[in-house]
Amino acid sequence: MAETIFSEMSRLAAENDAINLGQGFPDTPGPREVVDAAVAAMHKGWNQYPPAVGIPSLRHAIADHQRRWYGLDVAADGGVVVCSGASEALSSAMTGLLSPGDEVIALEPYYDLYGATAALLGATLVPVRIHAPDYALDADALRAAVTERTKMIVLNTPHNPTGAVLSRAELQSIADVAVEHDLVVLSDEVYEHLVFDDNVHVPIATLPGMFERTITVGSGGKTFSVTGWKIGWATGPADLVAKVLGVKQWFSFAAGTPLQHGIATGLELPDDRLAHLADDLARKRDLLTDGLRELGLEVFHSKATYFVTADVAPLGVTDSLEFCRSLPERVGVAAVPNQVFHASPVGVETQVRFACCKRDEILADALLRLRKL
Amino acid sequence: MAETIFSEMSRLAAENDAINLGQGFPDTPGPREVVDAAVAAMHKGWNQYPPAVGIPSLRHAIADHQRRWYGLDVAADGGVVVCSGASEALSSAMTGLLSPGDEVIALEPYYDLYGATAALLGATLVPVRIHAPDYALDADALRAAVTERTKMIVLNTPHNPTGAVLSRAELQSIADVAVEHDLVVLSDEVYEHLVFDDNVHVPIATLPGMFERTITVGSGGKTFSVTGWKIGWATGPADLVAKVLGVKQWFSFAAGTPLQHGIATGLELPDDRLAHLADDLARKRDLLTDGLRELGLEVFHSKATYFVTADVAPLGVTDSLEFCRSLPERVGVAAVPNQVFHASPVGVETQVRFACCKRDEILADALLRLRKL
Ligand SMILES: CSCCC(=O)C(=O)O
Ligand SMILES: CSCCC(=O)C(=O)O
Repeated sequence: MAETIFSEMSRLAAENDAINLGQGFPDTPGPREVVDAAVAAMHKGWNQYPPAVGIPSLRHAIADHQRRWYGLDVAADGGVVVCSGASEALSSAMTGLLSPGDEVIALEPYYDLYGATAALLGATLVPVRIHAPDYALDADALRAAVTERTKMIVLNTPHNPTGAVLSRAELQSIADVAVEHDLVVLSDEVYEHLVFDDNVHVPIATLPGMFERTITVGSGGKTFSVTGWKIGWATGPADLVAKVLGVKQWFSFAAGTPLQHGIATGLELPDDRLAHLADDLARKRDLLTDGLRELGLEVFHSKATYFVTADVAPLGVTDSLEFCRSLPERVGVAAVPNQVFHASPVGVETQVRFACCKRDEILADALLRLRKL
Repeated sequence: MAETIFSEMSRLAAENDAINLGQGFPDTPGPREVVDAAVAAMHKGWNQYPPAVGIPSLRHAIADHQRRWYGLDVAADGGVVVCSGASEALSSAMTGLLSPGDEVIALEPYYDLYGATAALLGATLVPVRIHAPDYALDADALRAAVTERTKMIVLNTPHNPTGAVLSRAELQSIADVAVEHDLVVLSDEVYEHLVFDDNVHVPIATLPGMFERTITVGSGGKTFSVTGWKIGWATGPADLVAKVLGVKQWFSFAAGTPLQHGIATGLELPDDRLAHLADDLARKRDLLTDGLRELGLEVFHSKATYFVTADVAPLGVTDSLEFCRSLPERVGVAAVPNQVFHASPVGVETQVRFACCKRDEILADALLRLRKL
């Protein structure tokens, strides 16, 4: 299997000493309490195997979080499995639920792991595209994509790479299809706390009839700015969560014990701390959006996530993949071509995703470098 | 898929407040430098995504380790991939190399993940049994197990659960079969530094013609007594290592950044520190072996690993699985039935694996509790 685009672009960034606006990770620390708790755990000697399902305190913190934020009644015992990152939660869920020949519907653009994992399993990813500039869901297109072989819908809200946040009405139309055709929904909600302005994240599991058919995926790394800790989770009804655990116990078995303690502490922070995690990021989104627009690019409004998508056609670009591969060497900036999130690049050949989760002076420097184009 | 035996027994241990001689993890800290380095990394803010392949310093430390200890010429770039534990290295390697219908030969008893992963992939595990008390390899049986569908041999030395250490002659007979039939060898060597007395661990990759067909798996958790950190790795020729990376980038993507820094520091410790890691464990092996013998049990000599196998038939036991399931409640001790490492329990119905990697007073207490039987 080919190298992921994130590895490729981060490697090119490192080789060319470029500013890395490719792979999504912040360059400032998250809540201090989170690191302190992981350090304390290590010093206490909590460095041995955790339960495969996750340490009890983290499972309880995740269940409490789902209850406080969304009113979801998740069981700390049976309804939560901690994974080695949201990646493992997603790949284990797909592996546990899909068989060769099955079809999985995903909103396109979609995170590359969904397609790669489907391919690994001999399943087929069926894309349903959402379009710039507003990325509204076409409910008819979704409905038309369902066949007798459809088993699952993979959803991602807030959405990477577009920064879209699905509305309750859009989620309802997905829920209608899922219920009508008895599909499982795998809902990747890793950016749940990185939502800007007065946009609101709604977990699809909160819609009537949906909890029992939804696996919701969350990420400690994204929420607390520790993407390298690789602590993610899946929550849902016991039967679906058991399938995730059944697979992931044979993948990594368990996730880093002291890091689980750190994330548990993070989830127990007062709600207003979590509510304000994205304030600074919203400002950075503006900085980057305005700067790219000043360069003459069309920039699509991002409501959430680490990312902003721009159309680089005004720079004379015709292929964003080629463009992104040369960018680190040409001007010392790395970015990700949106076409890697698509089954077919047609219509998005010139879209590029830039990460805004960097220090202000880094964003300013990147914009200065891009000016050379 | 069913719960792993390790999860089941650790759960029963916790529920019954039993001494856990089941799942293999130590209850004393490893080298202080290792934890200090991970803590320092966190405080430096090294908490973001590492490269999927692993941080450069750890990859170099692993390559240097293979060179210093075994004379193996492993490339830090291309010949090493860091994984979320040895588990992920093993499952990714099998997933990257096996197709439905393939056969994998494994020395039996074998670590349960090998069989579960083969099953998940639609491949078949073909066991070649090694027998108590000396666990010598029957080269003819190995040869007879090869068919046209055989693709891989999974080897584990030092061997869990028996504590066997394969001799150079035994490894040569495995190598002969692998070369003759053009098989890949997946060599699980996670206990490489937990070898007692004057036994010597020989990586099969050091035998003539073997490096190019061998993926060797190591474990930072086992070597440095931080089993909960989940930092393992695969080393080998670039083409095979690329297949491991190609899969594991879609499993967990990467392993915990600060923990990688900790393990890198561990591997850079002076060789004599690593050489003496097992001295204390050898003494504990003796404590447990002698204690179990005093209870009237036959105990098979363990040359390595965390484990000692005993035959509990003298206690009137006929089924070790049932015995181990009731033991935590009956006397407050957890252990693992060797039959879970077997395709068929016939001949090992009454063998039980006890972990010796516990503090002396804990081992003494466990023996006292077992006396009640
Ligand atoms: C697991 S690496 C990719 C990080 C990420 O989510 C992104 O950049 O889209
Ligand atoms: C990954 S849990 C099992 C630990 C272990 O290697 C064992 O107890 O055999």
